[in-house]
Amino acid sequence: MSKAIFYHAGCPVCRSAEQGLVSAIDKRRYQIESVNLGQQPQRIPEAERAGVKSLPALVIEGAAYHINFGASLEEIKHPEEVHAGVVSPEEGD
Amino acid sequence: MSKAIFYHAGCPVCRSAEQGLVSAIDKRRYQIESVNLGQQPQRIPEAERAGVKSLPALVIEGAAYHINFGASLEEIKHPEEVHAGVVSPEEGD
Repeated sequence: MSKAIFYHAGCPVCRSAEQGLVSAIDKRRYQIESVNLGQQPQRIPEAERAGVKSLPALVIEGAAYHINFGASLEEIKHPEEVHAGVVSPEEGD
Repeated sequence: MSKAIFYHAGCPVCRSAEQGLVSAIDKRRYQIESVNLGQQPQRIPEAERAGVKSLPALVIEGAAYHINFGASLEEIKHPEEVHAGVVSPEEGD
Protein backbone atom coordinates (compact mmCIF):
# COMPACT_ATOMS: atom_id res chain seq x y z
CA MET A 1 0.00 0.00 0.00
CA SER A 2 1.49 3.31 -1.12
CA LYS A 3 0.80 6.60 0.56
CA ALA A 4 -0.74 9.71 -1.04
CA ILE A 5 -1.31 12.93 0.90
CA PHE A 6 -3.63 15.61 -0.45
CA TYR A 7 -2.74 19.02 0.98
CA HIS A 8 -5.38 21.70 0.55
CA ALA A 9 -6.86 24.87 2.01
CA GLY A 10 -10.57 24.17 1.74
CA CYS A 11 -10.79 26.48 -1.30
CA PRO A 12 -13.08 25.90 -4.33
CA VAL A 13 -10.13 24.87 -6.53
CA CYS A 14 -9.09 22.45 -3.77
CA ARG A 15 -12.54 20.91 -3.55
CA SER A 16 -12.74 20.49 -7.32
CA ALA A 17 -9.36 18.73 -7.35
CA GLU A 18 -10.36 16.47 -4.47
CA GLN A 19 -13.70 15.52 -6.00
CA GLY A 20 -12.53 15.20 -9.59
CA LEU A 21 -8.97 13.94 -9.42
CA VAL A 22 -8.07 12.64 -5.96
CA SER A 23 -11.27 10.59 -5.85
CA ALA A 24 -10.14 8.88 -9.09
CA ILE A 25 -7.06 7.38 -7.41
CA ASP A 26 -7.05 3.65 -6.89
CA LYS A 27 -7.81 3.07 -3.22
CA ARG A 28 -6.75 -0.56 -3.45
CA ARG A 29 -3.18 0.59 -4.10
CA TYR A 30 -3.05 3.96 -2.33
CA GLN A 31 -3.86 5.04 1.19
CA ILE A 32 -5.06 8.63 0.77
CA GLU A 33 -4.92 11.22 3.52
CA SER A 34 -6.52 14.66 3.15
CA VAL A 35 -4.90 17.49 5.13
CA ASN A 36 -6.34 21.03 5.38
CA LEU A 37 -3.24 23.13 6.09
CA GLY A 38 -5.38 26.08 7.16
CA GLN A 39 -6.73 23.95 9.97
CA GLN A 40 -3.53 21.97 10.58
CA PRO A 41 -0.70 24.53 10.20
CA GLN A 42 1.63 22.30 12.21
CA ARG A 43 1.87 20.11 9.10
CA ILE A 44 3.06 22.94 6.81
CA PRO A 45 6.78 22.10 7.36
CA GLU A 46 6.20 18.51 6.28
CA ALA A 47 4.46 19.72 3.11
CA GLU A 48 7.31 22.15 2.40
CA ARG A 49 9.89 19.39 2.79
CA ALA A 50 7.96 17.35 0.18
CA GLY A 51 8.28 20.30 -2.23
CA VAL A 52 4.75 21.72 -1.95
CA LYS A 53 4.67 25.38 -3.07
CA SER A 54 0.95 25.89 -3.66
CA LEU A 55 -2.37 24.25 -2.89
CA PRO A 56 -3.99 21.99 -3.74
CA ALA A 57 -1.13 19.52 -4.06
CA LEU A 58 -0.90 15.78 -3.98
CA VAL A 59 2.25 14.13 -2.60
CA ILE A 60 2.64 10.58 -3.86
CA GLU A 61 5.58 8.54 -2.67
CA GLY A 62 7.39 11.74 -1.72
CA ALA A 63 6.89 13.56 -5.06
CA ALA A 64 4.75 16.73 -5.11
CA TYR A 65 2.14 17.28 -7.84
CA HIS A 66 0.53 20.72 -7.77
CA ILE A 67 -2.99 20.56 -9.20
CA ASN A 68 -4.22 23.83 -10.71
CA PHE A 69 -3.78 26.77 -8.33
CA GLY A 70 -5.86 27.67 -5.30
CA ALA A 71 -3.43 29.41 -2.95
CA SER A 72 0.30 29.67 -2.36
CA LEU A 73 1.76 28.07 0.74
CA GLU A 74 2.96 31.55 1.76
CA GLU A 75 -0.66 32.77 1.84
CA ILE A 76 -1.54 29.91 4.18
CA LYS A 77 1.46 30.65 6.39
CA HIS A 78 0.80 34.41 6.60
CA PRO A 79 -2.92 34.96 5.91
CA GLU A 80 -3.07 38.33 7.69
CA GLU A 81 -0.33 39.86 5.51
CA VAL A 82 -1.95 38.70 2.29
CA HIS A 83 -5.38 39.96 3.27
CA ALA A 84 -3.92 43.30 4.29
CA GLY A 85 -2.21 43.56 0.92
CA VAL A 86 -5.19 42.57 -1.18
CA VAL A 87 -7.93 44.62 0.45
CA SER A 88 -6.71 47.72 2.24
CA PRO A 89 -9.19 50.46 3.25
CA GLU A 90 -7.39 53.06 1.12
CA GLU A 91 -7.60 50.95 -2.02
CA GLY A 92 -11.15 49.74 -1.51
CA ASP A 93 -12.88 52.38 -3.65
CA MET B 1 -16.51 3.68 -17.18
CA SER B 2 -15.42 7.32 -17.00
CA LYS B 3 -12.93 8.88 -19.36
CA ALA B 4 -9.64 10.57 -18.43
CA ILE B 5 -7.35 12.11 -21.04
CA PHE B 6 -3.74 12.93 -20.16
CA TYR B 7 -2.39 15.67 -22.45
CA HIS B 8 1.37 16.07 -22.44
CA ALA B 9 4.38 17.11 -24.48
CA GLY B 10 6.82 14.31 -23.72
CA CYS B 11 8.71 16.60 -21.30
CA PRO B 12 10.37 15.45 -18.05
CA VAL B 13 7.64 17.09 -15.93
CA CYS B 14 5.07 15.31 -18.12
CA ARG B 15 6.73 11.93 -17.65
CA SER B 16 6.94 12.39 -13.89
CA ALA B 17 3.23 13.25 -13.73
CA GLU B 18 2.32 10.27 -15.89
CA GLN B 19 4.41 7.81 -13.91
CA GLY B 20 3.63 9.16 -10.45
CA LEU B 21 0.08 10.46 -10.62
CA VAL B 22 -1.73 9.26 -13.74
CA SER B 23 -0.59 5.70 -13.06
CA ALA B 24 -2.27 5.92 -9.64
CA ILE B 25 -5.73 6.38 -11.17
CA ASP B 26 -8.14 3.52 -10.76
CA LYS B 27 -8.24 1.72 -14.12
CA ARG B 28 -11.34 -0.22 -13.13
CA ARG B 29 -13.29 3.06 -13.09
CA TYR B 30 -11.42 5.19 -15.62
CA GLN B 31 -10.42 4.62 -19.19
CA ILE B 32 -7.19 6.60 -19.54
CA GLU B 33 -5.89 7.94 -22.85
CA SER B 34 -2.45 9.54 -23.17
CA VAL B 35 -2.07 12.18 -25.90
CA ASN B 36 1.26 13.82 -26.86
CA LEU B 37 0.15 17.16 -28.33
CA GLY B 38 3.58 17.71 -29.88
CA GLN B 39 3.01 14.59 -31.97
CA GLN B 40 -0.76 15.05 -32.38
CA PRO B 41 -1.27 18.80 -32.87
CA GLN B 42 -4.66 18.15 -34.47
CA ARG B 43 -5.94 17.45 -30.96
CA ILE B 44 -4.87 20.84 -29.54
CA PRO B 45 -8.30 22.45 -30.19
CA GLU B 46 -10.05 19.70 -28.24
CA ALA B 47 -7.65 20.24 -25.31
CA GLU B 48 -8.25 24.00 -25.44
CA ARG B 49 -12.01 23.52 -25.39
CA ALA B 50 -11.60 21.43 -22.22
CA GLY B 51 -9.76 24.36 -20.60
CA VAL B 52 -6.18 23.10 -20.91
CA LYS B 53 -3.70 26.02 -20.68
CA SER B 54 -0.47 24.17 -19.91
CA LEU B 55 0.97 20.67 -19.97
CA PRO B 56 0.86 18.18 -18.47
CA ALA B 57 -2.88 18.26 -17.83
CA LEU B 58 -5.43 15.64 -17.04
CA VAL B 59 -9.01 16.09 -18.25
CA ILE B 60 -11.46 14.03 -16.21
CA GLU B 61 -15.13 14.10 -17.15
CA GLY B 62 -14.55 17.39 -18.97
CA ALA B 63 -12.73 19.20 -16.15
CA ALA B 64 -9.06 20.19 -16.66
CA TYR B 65 -6.48 19.60 -13.94
CA HIS B 66 -3.07 21.09 -14.68
CA ILE B 67 -0.34 19.08 -12.95
CA ASN B 68 2.82 21.06 -12.15
CA PHE B 69 4.13 22.95 -15.20
CA GLY B 70 6.03 21.56 -18.15
CA ALA B 71 5.06 23.82 -21.05
CA SER B 72 2.31 26.23 -22.02
CA LEU B 73 -0.09 25.23 -24.75
CA GLU B 74 1.11 28.31 -26.67
CA GLU B 75 4.65 26.88 -26.72
CA ILE B 76 3.32 23.67 -28.24
CA LYS B 77 1.29 25.59 -30.82
CA HIS B 78 4.18 27.89 -31.84
CA PRO B 79 7.43 26.12 -30.95
CA GLU B 80 9.55 28.09 -33.45
CA GLU B 81 8.61 31.47 -31.94
CA VAL B 82 9.37 30.34 -28.42
CA HIS B 83 12.72 28.85 -29.37
CA ALA B 84 13.65 32.03 -31.22
CA GLY B 85 12.78 34.04 -28.14
CA VAL B 86 14.55 31.87 -25.62
CA VAL B 87 17.84 31.27 -27.41
CA SER B 88 18.80 33.96 -29.89
CA PRO B 89 22.38 34.17 -31.21
CA GLU B 90 22.81 37.66 -29.80
CA GLU B 91 21.83 36.67 -26.29
CA GLY B 92 23.71 33.39 -26.23
CA ASP B 93 26.87 34.67 -24.59
